[in-house]
Amino acid sequence: MSGMENLRVVLVGTRNPLNLGAVARAMSNFGALDLRVVSPYEKAWREARSAVGAAELLAKAEEFATVAEAVADCTLVVGTTAVGYRELQQPLRSLQAAGPVIRKRLATSKVALLFGSEKWGLSNESLSHCHWLLRIPTRAEHRSMNLGQAVAVCLYEMGKGGRERLTTEATEEPQRAQRRAEKKKVRGSDELPATMETVERIGAVILEALRKSGYVAKRGEGKAEEKLRRMLRRFSLSEADAEVLLGMMRKILWKVELR
Amino acid sequence: MSGMENLRVVLVGTRNPLNLGAVARAMSNFGALDLRVVSPYEKAWREARSAVGAAELLAKAEEFATVAEAVADCTLVVGTTAVGYRELQQPLRSLQAAGPVIRKRLATSKVALLFGSEKWGLSNESLSHCHWLLRIPTRAEHRSMNLGQAVAVCLYEMGKGGRERLTTEATEEPQRAQRRAEKKKVRGSDELPATMETVERIGAVILEALRKSGYVAKRGEGKAEEKLRRMLRRFSLSEADAEVLLGMMRKILWKVELR
Repeated sequence: MSGMENLRVVLVGTRNPLNLGAVARAMSNFGALDLRVVSPYEKAWREARSAVGAAELLAKAEEFATVAEAVADCTLVVGTTAVGYRELQQPLRSLQAAGPVIRKRLATSKVALLFGSEKWGLSNESLSHCHWLLRIPTRAEHRSMNLGQAVAVCLYEMGKGGRERLTTEATEEPQRAQRRAEKKKVRGSDELPATMETVERIGAVILEALRKSGYVAKRGEGKAEEKLRRMLRRFSLSEADAEVLLGMMRKILWKVELR
Repeated sequence: MSGMENLRVVLVGTRNPLNLGAVARAMSNFGALDLRVVSPYEKAWREARSAVGAAELLAKAEEFATVAEAVADCTLVVGTTAVGYRELQQPLRSLQAAGPVIRKRLATSKVALLFGSEKWGLSNESLSHCHWLLRIPTRAEHRSMNLGQAVAVCLYEMGKGGRERLTTEATEEPQRAQRRAEKKKVRGSDELPATMETVERIGAVILEALRKSGYVAKRGEGKAEEKLRRMLRRFSLSEADAEVLLGMMRKILWKVELR
């Protein structure tokens, strides 16, 4: 299935139950069956899940309190934005350019695609969890897309290449992807990208060390955390390196706490 | 604007006012500003147009009684379908394969993209107006897409190549497209594709002649008309040839009617 089973669609702060249903439908159409929601509007979430004929997909969707938890098992986190270039602190790719990059990663590990609330998009905190951002090229006069439509367009692009196969239900390709993944494993885990769980752990330890050593003032802590998070994602850590780095930082923190 | 101004989105028999609004929004996002509706459900159409904040695009949309009238000024008519291969009497392209073909035509003349009703899709009569059909590759287990999402995905693909420019508002490309169009004109009108209006006229004259000459029985007339229509579209007539053919057929009809 061209790696679509490795895609996690993560909705953050969604408000409209109809949009939740629309997203679920588009996901089912394109074979992305794993939906995750982060702090959705309680009422919208309840309504969407109890709607008659609510997709199985919506019933199976997992709810998370934070973006960090929702993307913990992914090795790449991509945020979607309608914003042009204003204020963005991360690299921005057009959907067409993003497609091949994400598809390649999907062949071997999990990728999270983040969509913000209908009203505000993704917050700076949510954006800080992303390696880079993706924009669907829309008119400058009317940039902001409907949530369900934005998800549909993104999934169409993610599914490319595998899509013809989706219709004919060929079974050959998953095996090939499997072989490719196994080949990678043989080459050693230092080439496997780190999961966000490990990267978040490193960030937490470093932040604690900075806090304890007086580098970070209580007031500026939120900002510092976001900056650190973005920086760690720019490192493109392998899982092996991340484990080593985590060990180092833990040791340093232990030393800091001794004093 | 990469020819998007030449695209006509034609909705046939749409039932849900929310879908009409969703289609209008997607069109505005991708710079396809000309919406045409054919016999929509009266109530849905009224509601959608009177909705608070109804897009200007929806207000400007034109209503037609028949598909023939809605596509009269186009030189290429493409129908969308969720159906696999069952019963289809026309060539079928995946959206990805359809993109370049449609984009090329859009550079010089008008193209209609037809979407059927949410419940039934396009009827055989509507399909008979299409040169070929387009399918968004979705899962075999869940083929049918939401109307607004299907339109969004199609327009994303149609706008490709021009999309980056949409965001930067560069003005160079339209001029290049213009030059290309003018070059074509110099090569003579025999290379310009025929509009559907001319092709429909030919069909009407031939059908009348067949009727008058007893070739077509009263009972089978609808079927015969659809067959004839599909055949004429397979000819890929140039406007010049179409005019000649129309003259010939008119002459023959005149002769038939004399007897």
